[in-house]
Amino acid sequence: MNSEVMIYEGKAKRLFSTDHPEELILEFKNDLTAFNALKKGSFEGKSFLNLSFSEMMFDAIESQGVLTHRLRKIDQTRTLVKKLVMIPLEVVVRNKVAGSLAAKMKIQEGADLAVPIVEFYYKSDSLQDPFLNSQQIVAFGFASAEDLQDLEKLALKINSIMKEICERAGILLIDFKLEFGRDSSGHLVLADEISPDSCRFWDIQTKQKLDKDVFRRDLGSVEDAYKEVYLRIKNVLNP
Amino acid sequence: MNSEVMIYEGKAKRLFSTDHPEELILEFKNDLTAFNALKKGSFEGKSFLNLSFSEMMFDAIESQGVLTHRLRKIDQTRTLVKKLVMIPLEVVVRNKVAGSLAAKMKIQEGADLAVPIVEFYYKSDSLQDPFLNSQQIVAFGFASAEDLQDLEKLALKINSIMKEICERAGILLIDFKLEFGRDSSGHLVLADEISPDSCRFWDIQTKQKLDKDVFRRDLGSVEDAYKEVYLRIKNVLNP
Repeated sequence: MNSEVMIYEGKAKRLFSTDHPEELILEFKNDLTAFNALKKGSFEGKSFLNLSFSEMMFDAIESQGVLTHRLRKIDQTRTLVKKLVMIPLEVVVRNKVAGSLAAKMKIQEGADLAVPIVEFYYKSDSLQDPFLNSQQIVAFGFASAEDLQDLEKLALKINSIMKEICERAGILLIDFKLEFGRDSSGHLVLADEISPDSCRFWDIQTKQKLDKDVFRRDLGSVEDAYKEVYLRIKNVLNP
Repeated sequence: MNSEVMIYEGKAKRLFSTDHPEELILEFKNDLTAFNALKKGSFEGKSFLNLSFSEMMFDAIESQGVLTHRLRKIDQTRTLVKKLVMIPLEVVVRNKVAGSLAAKMKIQEGADLAVPIVEFYYKSDSLQDPFLNSQQIVAFGFASAEDLQDLEKLALKINSIMKEICERAGILLIDFKLEFGRDSSGHLVLADEISPDSCRFWDIQTKQKLDKDVFRRDLGSVEDAYKEVYLRIKNVLNP
């Protein structure tokens, strides 16, 4: 891994090339951003917490037969991943109403849904990640109708796995965001991360938020929330 | 039809009960509104033009086997229609990028689409008709997944019929909005109207707008635009 060149810097992560053309280093940062990076923050140890959380969840998801981009953990803030051709969509799964959906429908956060909802957002900072339906995505060529069906199935399978883990940890999995890519064999592969940056977690009893909403809405110590949710999931998955 | 009681007043139409429990009178108004009724206008003869336009299009659509709510025309501004249980969705079909989609994607109006797009908006003035995907609509119980598939098929069939008519009239059918209901036998039935209020029509050569955008965007005489598009379609359908 001599040829480490940064090829992408996101809000909370960086990607570096390696001397292997199909392998990248994914580095977690301590930064936190919200509202398309209008609000910024950070705390020491966030990169460790989020990478550790993500690795645990990816382990659990892989064990159920879902392909992920992970190859091996490098150190406390970096992991080696497969290079993918990314699908330019954020795939959101919702088990309860919250966030933008609560605002759009003027429904209280936490309201039940008859079935989980899958939503697709086109990844574009300049367009502010617009919400698209399947027909729009196909017409613009961002993904095929078949891809979208496969992504929906994968997202719902991952939802089942994560929901069950969260319940055992006394956590309501309200909603979360996934990203996928295609590997050199053409398979759809889960990429990016799963962490309190990309999920809404509520305490099952008190409904206290244990995720990035603590930062977005100034609800207290985001560090404490991330530690709490990490320790609870660790107790379930790696006791 | 002695028991004519107004049961609904919309922005451009009124509905009245009749002495027959399954029949309603649909009356067209001369009013024009835009931006969720923030902008208002009207012109003499609009009700006649829009009803006449709508009747011609509904004739053409019915002749291709699509059920509609129409029973018979009463006079120059009123038509007798079947009472339906309405599906609370606006069904939008797009052949070219325009309006809200152009704004959302920062794409020039008139840009091509690889395939026509069907979109669903939840009919709610207080929520400003939010754009929903199929999974949201099913989760909130506004329609079933099967209904949505049927609505999409019907909308695309109607699109084919209207596009062909418009082309013969030298008009580009950019996009349009439909509404559907269910009759007492449970069939999905095309309702509401089809007019320059609910469609985007552009001259095929000059790309001049011949629809409500003339009013929305103060582009000249909306009356002239509505007359022009009515006469062109009449020349094709009822010469």
